[in-house]
Amino acid sequence: MIQTPEEAAITERAVASFAATADPRLREIVQGLVRHAHAFAQEVELTERELLAGLQFLTATGQMCDGLVRQEYILLSDVIGLSMLVDAINHRSDSQVTESTVFGPFYIEGMPERAYGENMAFTPGEPALLTGRVTDANGQPLPDAVLDIWQTAANGMYSGQDTQQPATNLRGRYRTDAQGRYAIRTILPVSYPIPTDGPVGRLLAATGRHPWRPAHLHFMVEAPGHRTLVTHLFNHDDPYLDSDAVFGVKESLRIAYTPLPANDPIARPFGIEGAVFHAHYDFVLPPVTPA
Amino acid sequence: MIQTPEEAAITERAVASFAATADPRLREIVQGLVRHAHAFAQEVELTERELLAGLQFLTATGQMCDGLVRQEYILLSDVIGLSMLVDAINHRSDSQVTESTVFGPFYIEGMPERAYGENMAFTPGEPALLTGRVTDANGQPLPDAVLDIWQTAANGMYSGQDTQQPATNLRGRYRTDAQGRYAIRTILPVSYPIPTDGPVGRLLAATGRHPWRPAHLHFMVEAPGHRTLVTHLFNHDDPYLDSDAVFGVKESLRIAYTPLPANDPIARPFGIEGAVFHAHYDFVLPPVTPA
Repeated sequence: MIQTPEEAAITERAVASFAATADPRLREIVQGLVRHAHAFAQEVELTERELLAGLQFLTATGQMCDGLVRQEYILLSDVIGLSMLVDAINHRSDSQVTESTVFGPFYIEGMPERAYGENMAFTPGEPALLTGRVTDANGQPLPDAVLDIWQTAANGMYSGQDTQQPATNLRGRYRTDAQGRYAIRTILPVSYPIPTDGPVGRLLAATGRHPWRPAHLHFMVEAPGHRTLVTHLFNHDDPYLDSDAVFGVKESLRIAYTPLPANDPIARPFGIEGAVFHAHYDFVLPPVTPA
Repeated sequence: MIQTPEEAAITERAVASFAATADPRLREIVQGLVRHAHAFAQEVELTERELLAGLQFLTATGQMCDGLVRQEYILLSDVIGLSMLVDAINHRSDSQVTESTVFGPFYIEGMPERAYGENMAFTPGEPALLTGRVTDANGQPLPDAVLDIWQTAANGMYSGQDTQQPATNLRGRYRTDAQGRYAIRTILPVSYPIPTDGPVGRLLAATGRHPWRPAHLHFMVEAPGHRTLVTHLFNHDDPYLDSDAVFGVKESLRIAYTPLPANDPIARPFGIEGAVFHAHYDFVLPPVTPA
């Protein structure tokens, strides 16, 4: 790699210009970003036309975002693996607890509280029942933990992306009971493509990548005295498990749904009379201070 | 710096996901960008909150852009020195010609052609006259070269930023005569702050940097058979020459304006009867294939 003295001097001046940043963490981040942005341009010998095309791509990515459910920059961070890397860096000490994965761009705050075993699906699909517990790292059940959940409809779209769905469809906040148990009625998750009608979709197309994510449910699990867990549970038999467009899959987050016949004793207490797919998963939350 | 095997694996998978990119240059750029984005996150151990704040900053930067004269991403590239670095990388062999500098975000295409010595200032300021020649690297004059010029008004704003100015104010395309000469009537450039009402302004404020640029004229000079030159000419005595917010200053691009008295023989041929500041600068354009 060539770096002329003039080029090295430009980088040093740019880095030095941020030396008076009052907040030491902001200084570290900005100076690191400047060094890496320059190192990238130097390494690939970026042309002026390419820089402009890149800045236009970044502009279009910002302009694709709306205030609600479309956040194209989170999507970009996801498809380049940056979100999963930051996730890994921030959960190094969490080996005894449920693994985390990407947050994604489709979460909506303020969804309704749902009762134990309530159905959150208002659109058709294969009926599913998910049960389990939330515990701490010692196996103690955590009552009153909140599981905030979001999932696509059978058409692969989240409410908010799809005006045909009720706003609260396949979203909701479930609370654990005194034994730390939760129960969720929903439909079987399906694989779906991330939105391809924006700059991120154009990037994937230009680089020969598919936009599919393996079927999953999103979870944000919160309990007092514990760190919030952001994760998914993936259908264990999805064809896209090995090529998730956002690199989110972890072995420990795969769950198998078992088909239960009509009037099965597991399902009947929830008022489910027909056949249903059932899975069970126990979440383990990390303490506030990592062990 | 810590990098766990899991983190290294995420980066390798993200880089590998772009391996099937058909265009080899796009592949090189995207893979380089992914590696450097990951190396940055790894080096500063970016938190999830910081990643989200960064993505929100990038979103806001895109949303600050309009279709016309506000291009906040060019401004961002400029204030982190990236534009000047790319400029330097792409003009390594141009030591015998006029030096280039940043393009900036304020150029507008399609401005009117102006006659030899025509005044492009429709707002008040200190009258100025700029004369000179455009030649090739061997000193041969280049007739019919076009100098596309833009400059702020005395209030520090470009037309397009400031609805009070006529759209073509302090902008225009001058053509060299048969001897390669040009002449421009305008007003003396003033120092001005880059726009501070957007994300880039907030970045500068948070990092203790001022937003000022030393007074200058922008030039894009084109002639058949030659590479287009994008540069500025800076007032040689500006207080911000050593701290240009976008790192654009080069020693060879400083010019001195000499005050001419009323009815000076240099100014009179252009119909200038009063006192005027005069500067002279000869542009040397690089050949299409760098020597």
